[in-house]
Amino acid sequence: MGLDLTLGLWAVRGPDTPPFFLIDDPARVRARAQQIGIAADIAVIDTPAEARPAFSSAFPVLAHGFAVDSVPGRPDPANGPATVDAITRAVALVRAGDAAALVTNPIQKETLYRAGFDYPGHTEYLAALAGPDTVSVMLLAAPDLKVVPVTIHIPLAEVPRRLTTELILTTARITAAAMRRDFGIANPRLALAGLNPHAGEGGALGREDGDVIAPAVATLRAEGIDARGPLPADTLFHAEARTTYDVVLGMYHDQVLVPLKTLDFWGGVNVTLGLPFVRTSPDHGTALDLAGTGRARIDSLKAAVEMADAMARRRAAAS
Amino acid sequence: MGLDLTLGLWAVRGPDTPPFFLIDDPARVRARAQQIGIAADIAVIDTPAEARPAFSSAFPVLAHGFAVDSVPGRPDPANGPATVDAITRAVALVRAGDAAALVTNPIQKETLYRAGFDYPGHTEYLAALAGPDTVSVMLLAAPDLKVVPVTIHIPLAEVPRRLTTELILTTARITAAAMRRDFGIANPRLALAGLNPHAGEGGALGREDGDVIAPAVATLRAEGIDARGPLPADTLFHAEARTTYDVVLGMYHDQVLVPLKTLDFWGGVNVTLGLPFVRTSPDHGTALDLAGTGRARIDSLKAAVEMADAMARRRAAAS
Repeated sequence: MGLDLTLGLWAVRGPDTPPFFLIDDPARVRARAQQIGIAADIAVIDTPAEARPAFSSAFPVLAHGFAVDSVPGRPDPANGPATVDAITRAVALVRAGDAAALVTNPIQKETLYRAGFDYPGHTEYLAALAGPDTVSVMLLAAPDLKVVPVTIHIPLAEVPRRLTTELILTTARITAAAMRRDFGIANPRLALAGLNPHAGEGGALGREDGDVIAPAVATLRAEGIDARGPLPADTLFHAEARTTYDVVLGMYHDQVLVPLKTLDFWGGVNVTLGLPFVRTSPDHGTALDLAGTGRARIDSLKAAVEMADAMARRRAAAS
Repeated sequence: MGLDLTLGLWAVRGPDTPPFFLIDDPARVRARAQQIGIAADIAVIDTPAEARPAFSSAFPVLAHGFAVDSVPGRPDPANGPATVDAITRAVALVRAGDAAALVTNPIQKETLYRAGFDYPGHTEYLAALAGPDTVSVMLLAAPDLKVVPVTIHIPLAEVPRRLTTELILTTARITAAAMRRDFGIANPRLALAGLNPHAGEGGALGREDGDVIAPAVATLRAEGIDARGPLPADTLFHAEARTTYDVVLGMYHDQVLVPLKTLDFWGGVNVTLGLPFVRTSPDHGTALDLAGTGRARIDSLKAAVEMADAMARRRAAAS
């Protein structure tokens, strides 16, 4: 479905659309455009530099070979290695400065697992490519709300034991640095959600808020980071509350993904912080059932491309 | 602050406002009305039946004695026993049919604890008054969303072990019955949220979704209840998703309180299901800092009174 969206975004391009190119098989792209009724000339490019001049009149594709032709919505495991290779190639291009930022479409992880891919997802693979000491942080950004889950894809039962003051500190420091560098917020205000109902109600509803989160907030404040918390999660996301911070750090996946997707289901962007390059992604799944139908919504990919462009410009301007 | 709100709601009464009376000390009510600038004649009533004829021209108060005068926003523990007694008295009136429904204002639990009150809150005390076999269920209702937390005020770490198929079944059955009887929904659609991220992703992110929640859904469906789940919580609350169910059962406090308060911070109503009488309450805390200032918002109390009236009418019409 990512291919449909990328073609769809190109089709509605305007003078302000950041030029992008796709790493893919030109024949596959041409066939899909025809299938979903997008009249696109395909510009097969050899280097990223050719994308910008081509963009207004043709859809730029950096040719990448796949083992087999696959049916839309049914990724073929035989193409797993070439898919992983495309990601690796994209990272090399952004690290070399040949491309300003990396925007990834959702991948079907099962296909890659069967190809021997050994990471929970894109984000972890990109962190591994960036180097052994890389700690990546997942930021979800919608126009009215930015959130960071401190723990992510783990069972809820494991959250209390995986949550440490050190993990919260590392996550908050990376988040604060990114707010300054990538989002142009000079003094970012971080709100930390409590783990327990009512942020533990003074210990009556759990001790982690006082024992684990509060010390992290104190340390962050001592470092000059404007952090507050632990705050009860249920009163943290209404319109008035959202004016009091720039980003919320939640302690687990649903605590922050629920309000984000409740407020903005279609336009959210997934940003990986802590990498030595800019990487964004639409904040939705593969929606394989929509592939080839032309019915997928481009909002999130559009926002992901525009956010990547804005972040890359800020980094370039500061360097 | 509950007194301020009740006076404020009376002050904006219209022909459609369900008549209500307050159980309180008339002198305290008179003084507070003066303090917050509400011109209210106080009608001291001896029986609930006197409230209706008095309501349009005066604020009806069923006289209740308190030990000491307290300062607005500073509940006195000396009044704890009389406060508990007022709740007990209100329950007796609704059980006898002298009043149609019970609407409670938020109480300051610490004051009651010091008076020897041994319940986590209003809801649990009301269930105890209703009888030893009473299982109460907390429903939070806003205009666009109704939610029920299966576990409520417990530490997050305890949620996975307290969550059982039996607890989900009991909660869902009470919820479905109340949707029919009190809300007039003939075939209520229940959506059950998963416990883990992505509802466990087939077991990779936790086993409770498959082992505990899925069997409950299967049993409910076999009983003829339109239940679905476990569903990923993060994609369950946006506008389009909300058209697919009548009520969401979430597995823990923040999972459902977060989206409810994100969507409607001021107008939510707390309804206790499973009691032999109708009971609602504003879905906010005591906001003691606002007591006596006249700045508290009446939205939630207004919604609580109107919902109690509608529920009581449906029960009366059906009996």
